[in-house]
Amino acid sequence: MKIIDVGVTAAKGFEAAAAAAGIKYQNRTDMALVYSTVPCKAAGTFTSNIVKAAPVVWDSNVVENSPYVQAVVVNSGIANACTGQQGMDCCKAEAVKAGEVLNIPESAVLVASTGVIGKQIDVEKITAGIELLAAAKAPGAEAGLAAAKAIMTTDTVHKQAAVTVEIGGKTVTVGGMCKGSGMIHPNMCTMLGFVTTDVNISKEMLTKAVKASVADTFNMISVDGDTSTNDTLLVLANGLAGNEEITEEGADFDAFCEALNTINTALAKKMAGDGEGATALFETIVTNAATKEDAKILAKSVICSSLTKAAIFGHDANWGRILCALGYSGAKFDPENVDLYFQSKSGKMQIFGNGVACDYSEEEATKILSDPEVTVLVDMHMGDAQATAWGCDLSYDYVKINADYRS
Amino acid sequence: MKIIDVGVTAAKGFEAAAAAAGIKYQNRTDMALVYSTVPCKAAGTFTSNIVKAAPVVWDSNVVENSPYVQAVVVNSGIANACTGQQGMDCCKAEAVKAGEVLNIPESAVLVASTGVIGKQIDVEKITAGIELLAAAKAPGAEAGLAAAKAIMTTDTVHKQAAVTVEIGGKTVTVGGMCKGSGMIHPNMCTMLGFVTTDVNISKEMLTKAVKASVADTFNMISVDGDTSTNDTLLVLANGLAGNEEITEEGADFDAFCEALNTINTALAKKMAGDGEGATALFETIVTNAATKEDAKILAKSVICSSLTKAAIFGHDANWGRILCALGYSGAKFDPENVDLYFQSKSGKMQIFGNGVACDYSEEEATKILSDPEVTVLVDMHMGDAQATAWGCDLSYDYVKINADYRS
Repeated sequence: MKIIDVGVTAAKGFEAAAAAAGIKYQNRTDMALVYSTVPCKAAGTFTSNIVKAAPVVWDSNVVENSPYVQAVVVNSGIANACTGQQGMDCCKAEAVKAGEVLNIPESAVLVASTGVIGKQIDVEKITAGIELLAAAKAPGAEAGLAAAKAIMTTDTVHKQAAVTVEIGGKTVTVGGMCKGSGMIHPNMCTMLGFVTTDVNISKEMLTKAVKASVADTFNMISVDGDTSTNDTLLVLANGLAGNEEITEEGADFDAFCEALNTINTALAKKMAGDGEGATALFETIVTNAATKEDAKILAKSVICSSLTKAAIFGHDANWGRILCALGYSGAKFDPENVDLYFQSKSGKMQIFGNGVACDYSEEEATKILSDPEVTVLVDMHMGDAQATAWGCDLSYDYVKINADYRS
Repeated sequence: MKIIDVGVTAAKGFEAAAAAAGIKYQNRTDMALVYSTVPCKAAGTFTSNIVKAAPVVWDSNVVENSPYVQAVVVNSGIANACTGQQGMDCCKAEAVKAGEVLNIPESAVLVASTGVIGKQIDVEKITAGIELLAAAKAPGAEAGLAAAKAIMTTDTVHKQAAVTVEIGGKTVTVGGMCKGSGMIHPNMCTMLGFVTTDVNISKEMLTKAVKASVADTFNMISVDGDTSTNDTLLVLANGLAGNEEITEEGADFDAFCEALNTINTALAKKMAGDGEGATALFETIVTNAATKEDAKILAKSVICSSLTKAAIFGHDANWGRILCALGYSGAKFDPENVDLYFQSKSGKMQIFGNGVACDYSEEEATKILSDPEVTVLVDMHMGDAQATAWGCDLSYDYVKINADYRS
């Protein structure tokens, strides 16, 4: 597997575009198009929030029922959530317009929105934007980058990743982009993520690969514990790599899953590390847990703890809060048998074991905690299950960004 | 029922004291004693965190097995949590010393600690503090106030409440104090709460009253979603009011429960409103839910949402976040049938209904949200169950306090 430096346009046959439609933001691009020159199989995972944005309802239906998909239209600024029938009508208008200008059926168009909840999108503005996108669409890294930038809201950096992998003697490419910084606590889903691949795979196996990968990647990150109304991951596969179609488990399927996992992990970590106001990516690895489920619950409990996140921001080795978060997670364990370590590029040190604090240097701990990527290692000494979760620290800027997001 | 302006020394036969023992803080009191001149029945609820502080283990045993209780020794500064056998030995030393200087059995002594996790308490300092407490103990409001101040950590105000109520022709008093500002997300318990009463009641009925009351009061508040290792509520009843002993359900039991609920609600709200860094008490009342359990889950989800809390801090009517928090709570409902209102002493306004935003004035909404006590009313239109939860806003100061709590 080889990591390459592009995103949704990395795989054969995929094009992209960005446009400034003035949906809410001024003086910046706020719409993106992902387009495949040939029909794609599509798989998606969506928010588990009962309050589902209109595009989530639209896409769930398309992914399940359309024979194929060929385009995704995305806007930032307004989430099209809690918008009633008018919001659904907007999705329909977007698909109709995109079908018209791209010369594809409206049933082959997916839509996604991100931004403030409760505002209606101006249909004239968004359909005008779709015309601009269709005229601008192009293959190549530049177009992919423009799309990745257009979907940002409070994100401070754009987020892309791509890899190539050999499958059945052919080079298969998997690439993606995502956005997400606040209201990040995906549950069977993510904020907005778009992955494109030229792999030749059946829809059934694509869906299987996506579900398995999401559980260990996007569903293991949290910025603030708030599961969005818009969380969406869409994966499009157009088959242009020319490998023999993957229709069952085996070496080819495993190779594709590994590539997909690599992209999803990279994108998920980018979201966590760019959490609103974050100064550090905060990773927790739980090893030797009794079950995989326990390992996940424990790891997520630590990265979700406001107190622990504030301590990471302060570079303060307040490990009691980590143990506290493990304790209220819901997983059963004996605190006397847990080992805790801090780790970063500056080093690794044990801080807790045998039920009491280790004799560690506060100065050394602060040094480790001052790096931009900080890891807590938790050894449960109970079994052989493992899980990793990613979050970020809690800073003044998180409060600042969210105390007055709408103005 | 009559509200009176005192705390743990309000009921007949209860005394209190404070002392400066130098456990961690300098130049302030950091130990408190609650003492009854006669034996008490005791009930308690404790943290559900698997990581239980040593005093929680000690008190659980005393409440369950001791024939009676007569004193509670409390320290602030160090939580005596994650301290292994040495922590348990400290509890024992505290009880032995208190028994000696108060002339009561060590099995009649409860202990409680609050502060930083993982540090050991100096036994010589705490036993010296107990000698000071025993010498200083006194009845009356002044002693109660001194105790309420000594148990504060990051609290900005001390927290007391008391009421009198007629039971069986006698005046019964219920009073209490508590502390709690961060790591507040009680589950079957609270941070540290101490309630004293002169009611004459059987241990069985006292336990029943306490369990029922905690579920609707202390367990319905959250500051930061972190369930502490030390959460403890202790209720002592010494019988000196002279009412006929309450041994079964009925009018007398109901009157006592109402008084207890009043105190627990008042103390719980004081904790939520004094949440670390808080500038406002944030209340959510859910009405007409399908079940009581749903009402509680929905109300707590709103007051726990970091994004909603940051919006309250910014006086921003970002109701989409409230609907989002209801949606991911886990309770089932139809978003089209939910009504949302903001309310404070400045007024009441509907902001959402029939699936879309109401036509409300942002200026008026900001005015309502600028008061020190802000309420969100949620009408589910599904049944007749109701619940109230209390939290606070999320401010810069929460981050400041917790980024470097230990120094």
